[in-house]
Amino acid sequence: MPDQTLPRTLRTRSWWGWGWADAHPDDAECVALGALVPGTLARPLPVPRVADLRIGGPAVEAPSSLGHLVTYDPAPRAAHAMGKAFRDVARALRGRPGRIPDLVAHPVTDQDVADLLEWAGERQVAVIPYGGGSSVVGGVEYRGEAHRAVLSLDLSAMDQVLEIDTVGRAARIRAGILGPALEDRLRPHGLTLRHFPQSFEFSTLGGWLATRAGGHYATTRTHIDDFTQSLGVVTPAGTTTSWRLPASGAGPSPDRLFLGSEGALGVITEAWMRLQDRPDHKASASVSFTDFHAALPAVRALAQSDLAPANCRLLDSGEAALSGAATDGRAVLVLGFESSTAPVDDRLAQAVELARAHGGRTTSGPADPSAPADSAVGAWRSAFLRMPYLRDGLVRMGAVAETFETATTWDRLPALIDAVRTEVGAAAHRATGRPALVNCRLTHVYPDGAAPYFTVIAGGRPGDEVAVWDDLKAVAGDVLHRHRATITHHHAVGRDHRPQYDLQRPEPFARALRAAKHALDPCGVLNPGVLVDG
Amino acid sequence: MPDQTLPRTLRTRSWWGWGWADAHPDDAECVALGALVPGTLARPLPVPRVADLRIGGPAVEAPSSLGHLVTYDPAPRAAHAMGKAFRDVARALRGRPGRIPDLVAHPVTDQDVADLLEWAGERQVAVIPYGGGSSVVGGVEYRGEAHRAVLSLDLSAMDQVLEIDTVGRAARIRAGILGPALEDRLRPHGLTLRHFPQSFEFSTLGGWLATRAGGHYATTRTHIDDFTQSLGVVTPAGTTTSWRLPASGAGPSPDRLFLGSEGALGVITEAWMRLQDRPDHKASASVSFTDFHAALPAVRALAQSDLAPANCRLLDSGEAALSGAATDGRAVLVLGFESSTAPVDDRLAQAVELARAHGGRTTSGPADPSAPADSAVGAWRSAFLRMPYLRDGLVRMGAVAETFETATTWDRLPALIDAVRTEVGAAAHRATGRPALVNCRLTHVYPDGAAPYFTVIAGGRPGDEVAVWDDLKAVAGDVLHRHRATITHHHAVGRDHRPQYDLQRPEPFARALRAAKHALDPCGVLNPGVLVDG
Repeated sequence: MPDQTLPRTLRTRSWWGWGWADAHPDDAECVALGALVPGTLARPLPVPRVADLRIGGPAVEAPSSLGHLVTYDPAPRAAHAMGKAFRDVARALRGRPGRIPDLVAHPVTDQDVADLLEWAGERQVAVIPYGGGSSVVGGVEYRGEAHRAVLSLDLSAMDQVLEIDTVGRAARIRAGILGPALEDRLRPHGLTLRHFPQSFEFSTLGGWLATRAGGHYATTRTHIDDFTQSLGVVTPAGTTTSWRLPASGAGPSPDRLFLGSEGALGVITEAWMRLQDRPDHKASASVSFTDFHAALPAVRALAQSDLAPANCRLLDSGEAALSGAATDGRAVLVLGFESSTAPVDDRLAQAVELARAHGGRTTSGPADPSAPADSAVGAWRSAFLRMPYLRDGLVRMGAVAETFETATTWDRLPALIDAVRTEVGAAAHRATGRPALVNCRLTHVYPDGAAPYFTVIAGGRPGDEVAVWDDLKAVAGDVLHRHRATITHHHAVGRDHRPQYDLQRPEPFARALRAAKHALDPCGVLNPGVLVDG
Repeated sequence: MPDQTLPRTLRTRSWWGWGWADAHPDDAECVALGALVPGTLARPLPVPRVADLRIGGPAVEAPSSLGHLVTYDPAPRAAHAMGKAFRDVARALRGRPGRIPDLVAHPVTDQDVADLLEWAGERQVAVIPYGGGSSVVGGVEYRGEAHRAVLSLDLSAMDQVLEIDTVGRAARIRAGILGPALEDRLRPHGLTLRHFPQSFEFSTLGGWLATRAGGHYATTRTHIDDFTQSLGVVTPAGTTTSWRLPASGAGPSPDRLFLGSEGALGVITEAWMRLQDRPDHKASASVSFTDFHAALPAVRALAQSDLAPANCRLLDSGEAALSGAATDGRAVLVLGFESSTAPVDDRLAQAVELARAHGGRTTSGPADPSAPADSAVGAWRSAFLRMPYLRDGLVRMGAVAETFETATTWDRLPALIDAVRTEVGAAAHRATGRPALVNCRLTHVYPDGAAPYFTVIAGGRPGDEVAVWDDLKAVAGDVLHRHRATITHHHAVGRDHRPQYDLQRPEPFARALRAAKHALDPCGVLNPGVLVDG
């Protein structure tokens, strides 16, 4: 059992799988998980060892002036080779990881980053910015042959909260800080960023900014973009620091060019982030519906009201069963409100009433704040955080187990969801000879549309898991493209989503982006292949 | 007296001043206005006539294939020479307008725009995109000598609402539509864009998008950026159409590159805009404070609450007196709430209570919805819409009368406002030999800062009004720069704000923007001099 009381610094991160090594399912739990998926292995694949990778010496060495910042040790190099997508974990388990970087750097100052970029440009060394390493889209992995060597630029030593403005509720924060450390530093001031993606424990502010992460809030402002007051970015063409402004109409937003740039235009080293008072008032409830589609009008009505629930997540029956929120075959809408200003019970009551007026049935709550947490809500929250570990357990059993997500307008949503279920389901059946699980939930909802999140679990071709997934992912990408649904709502583009991203973005914009890339990264060393070609 | 019952099409726009020609103050009203400002003229300057400009023939003529789209008539050419800033009006009154465009085009289709851009690129003709012509920053005026001729690209014929999605509350709207026409088309569907800048009657959707206009809402989302679902932009490098998406994390936002691009990167021809249900529930009130600074903590508390007033405008005593909201020397906070979901009286009451807890004194309201409109609120609203006409009346009397605006964080706000009052006031005194009026209001407030809006009225150097204003504007720009306040919150950069904009934006971003400009507008004909040099 994982020892949750150990300080973070004494726990060990898994080099090949999600999160903490001691939190992974043990062999017995893996077997139990595998039993749920027909066609998986009888025994789990062994936990892989770095020593078995036989990592050779680096193709280049940094000059002595940078020597104190870099390491050539096999263990950190292996741990920085890939992100944490299903295909990354499966490749590690099968002893076929991505390209191992030649060196890993841990810069401390902006000047360190600038020096490393200058050296890399001179020597044609690819630079892969690395925050928490939780990318599920191939965002921190080198692919190709064009560069002489690969440097993983790990920002974890740049993890300070440098200034806090308690009057205007903002803080200047270095990019390499992980979610829990950030909230720990803000808590004594009564402040919070309230950005809690599923990867919260293992992802950094810089990663959230570089990938336009979506977080805690299910409605209104949830993307990290809206909480960004200003950015500091080190590019090969110089360091850019925008002014701290609550709003501005002075030309296209400088920050919006770097938000979502995924390390291809520069290295985000710090940001002034907009904070909030910690919410004293919370309330949650869940409402069930006969099925997922029957719940959509209720969810849309909530999204178009000004009630602004912090949580408004719709689970289909499979998702509800997986998370323990419901086992009666009904879809479940998990609602939550929070405020630092005033009690939210009235808003919750109005929301529940609206959901009931659209055919919902109250399954729990409005919760009494003094009572134990609402059971469906609590079950959902625990499952949410445990999910990536369970995925890795399934992967050890030779299963395909992965998620993908998108967003589209309300008018296109029902047909899109049906098409994903049908076409990805059929592709999985073709590929594995067995039916697969394709679950759906809405993670974020907007007045004009919603973000569906799909989970696929399939067994039947252990040994070919990666090829099966790549097939399914191509089918999924094609469905999204045909339905004009974005290739990503909050997971980012990375390398895995490049084909559909290239189809999605307008060509004149792509031309402008390539020009911007060339202006800022003339040697083409920054995260090559991400967003635009070198 | 203006005949407000006349349909728009039968009223005449002023070629030299704000809005409708028949709504301008008459000579007697001008004299009355002038009497309020020491050092102005005894009689108003005459209304200028196009014929007196002696406009010559165009330097180029469009090919016959484009002939049906263009005009060389002096009247439209004069009307398209400048925007509606003080310095534009003053120059017209003094018979020294900006460069008169050689021709004015009225494209109907995207292909028309593309054809005009292609021809202009081949012939080195500068193209100035023109919506409602309400720019107050030199955004629609050619300056310089580098181009062979100047084409004003008037988008007013592209004014259709092409599609309405009532489920997802969005509409596909052509860029040339004016505010009132847009709301007229949406009203039968119960929908509204709710974007009401002061220029609403005389500005277009395309202009709002190109300048990142700020509008109706005093809190939360007010910039047009947030209401943009997708954009269609014709650039010399091709037409770009982004997908309709409620949200996306796929790379830097394509739309955010064109929002605020002020015609320098392409011509925005249409957009899918996010709409709202028309609010059935409204309530307003006003609260007064001993002075402006004493009110700031109350306004900040409101901005940091989740009450989200639609209106939260703080007027200093001079502004309150000018608008008739108060004449007792106190600062006035005008509060308004609106909702399509539920009554807002509770929210208003909470806001008023919060303001009172911070030292405010209720001057009116919470208004009974059945009672006549709150007097301070009503007075403020009428004055707001009448203000530009009164300004032009003052200009006819030889006064300097202009506004400028900015935004900054709460910690910097009090010192910034004091510095603007002191330094701009002193500069006006030096320039004119008399004290000037420098009023301030907060137009938009955010959790992390606010947008102050300044009005300057000075007399004393009739004949030199433009030079006096340019002096004051340079002083104001310098104060904003030293205090790290943006050169514009919602008026845009244009040509008047270029010096401070160049200092404000980070250099690597400027480099990327220049590269994007060159990629999209390789001949350098699009609104030359705006944002970046050609």
